[in-house]
Amino acid sequence: MYYKLTIEYDGKAFHGSQAQAAARGRTVQGELERALAQVTGTAIRIVLAGRTDAGVHALGQVASFALDPAWPRAKLFEALNGVLPGDLKVRAIDRAADGFHARYDAHQRDYRYLIWQAPAPAPLLRDRTWHVRKVLDVEAMHRAAQALLGRHNFASFCGGGLGVPSESETAEERPSTVRTMRAAACYVWPHSSLYEATPPADETARLLAVDLSANAFLPQMVRTIVGSLVAVGQGKWTAAQFAEVLAGADRRLAAPTAPPQGLCLLRVWYP
Amino acid sequence: MYYKLTIEYDGKAFHGSQAQAAARGRTVQGELERALAQVTGTAIRIVLAGRTDAGVHALGQVASFALDPAWPRAKLFEALNGVLPGDLKVRAIDRAADGFHARYDAHQRDYRYLIWQAPAPAPLLRDRTWHVRKVLDVEAMHRAAQALLGRHNFASFCGGGLGVPSESETAEERPSTVRTMRAAACYVWPHSSLYEATPPADETARLLAVDLSANAFLPQMVRTIVGSLVAVGQGKWTAAQFAEVLAGADRRLAAPTAPPQGLCLLRVWYP
Repeated sequence: MYYKLTIEYDGKAFHGSQAQAAARGRTVQGELERALAQVTGTAIRIVLAGRTDAGVHALGQVASFALDPAWPRAKLFEALNGVLPGDLKVRAIDRAADGFHARYDAHQRDYRYLIWQAPAPAPLLRDRTWHVRKVLDVEAMHRAAQALLGRHNFASFCGGGLGVPSESETAEERPSTVRTMRAAACYVWPHSSLYEATPPADETARLLAVDLSANAFLPQMVRTIVGSLVAVGQGKWTAAQFAEVLAGADRRLAAPTAPPQGLCLLRVWYP
Repeated sequence: MYYKLTIEYDGKAFHGSQAQAAARGRTVQGELERALAQVTGTAIRIVLAGRTDAGVHALGQVASFALDPAWPRAKLFEALNGVLPGDLKVRAIDRAADGFHARYDAHQRDYRYLIWQAPAPAPLLRDRTWHVRKVLDVEAMHRAAQALLGRHNFASFCGGGLGVPSESETAEERPSTVRTMRAAACYVWPHSSLYEATPPADETARLLAVDLSANAFLPQMVRTIVGSLVAVGQGKWTAAQFAEVLAGADRRLAAPTAPPQGLCLLRVWYP
């Protein structure tokens, strides 16, 4: 029987989502596999829909695995949450079609990046946002982000060395950095903390959201795009210059990568 | 020159707001006084508007102090935030009238308590909410809470031993447990996480808010009221029984105190 787990985690104490070859610290995959082994008594290999770096959060990451004989969903839900740590829990558990693969079958990932734009850092938001001191031109950021829509070579926004052309590789040998962006938006988030239901009147202290949805993402892609959109918001680049960075297909053209704690994987879509 | 500081803190790593006689751990007052001494080179005693227990957060706690000679506000703001730890920052700094006292001059405190009511704990909310598994009757909680409005002896909702009548004290010798509640509301919070702008359609997984505003609060008063309102929401007590708990003026009548991490001091009001 194949299962689909929807999981939430606080990325702060994880060294990313994927199990590491060497023991480099806690990972989401490692904790899930440990919990499944503890509950079922069997070693089970899971697949995650999206890789998230150390410090990146998820509200709706998806994991897939096979388990035989099948368990009742409610029983597995309670048992897993009973042994999982406080910073990683199962939100939902569904049976899936035979062969279901959380990564290969996903056709869209939705990410949200939150920026705390204010003169002072916010203690209650410090693990969930990137603090930027100066007022950002959110409308300029939104206009620039529209250049991302559609099918592009996103090499400029690809971390991990993949976005820098190598002379020893031919174009055919390089892993593809082409992806399709389906939604891109920058806007003032409708509340300025978990405890407030309305946006502040004051534009000098507010939360900003950057939403990006694509068929798939390259390593650090959201964070590198956010770093460059903030350069637009600060007036360092025009929307046209941002579009040139994208068209240049070279990581060295983009701005520094935004920090991980502002990023959250919201949802993964399946057919 | 008198100053009014509006401060925000994440209560997780604090042993409450007030400096302790014995060295029992980090306190909000201790960290603020240390930062003021470091910045100004003078030992400055501060006063906080409200006491918050270990684990309780604040978005708008207020501190008062005198500093001579006066500092420019912007310079003091930058200097203090430069040396304060990441979990405690100054949001605003204002000059105040001579003799301004953050506690005595305050005429209203607004608190918000957040409950995560869902089958599973939420990793991204675990330090900001009380997790309650079963669906609560929020409307019944709201109706019951209306009994709190006005001037009452709140001894039933007073922690720290003050709410239990002592036979060795006469009524006149006891510290007053009379307070005036100006607002009391329980409702479904309009989003279910920092990352979501709409409430969930599903009533089995949602954030609930309990808002209480009074001239002043007794020790653990909000948390004890919330504990008893949840008993109403679970169907253990009717609104009439909740009103009887209040009228009984004895802490032993109330339900267990709700945990601290769900509570946030939102705002303190001055004339």
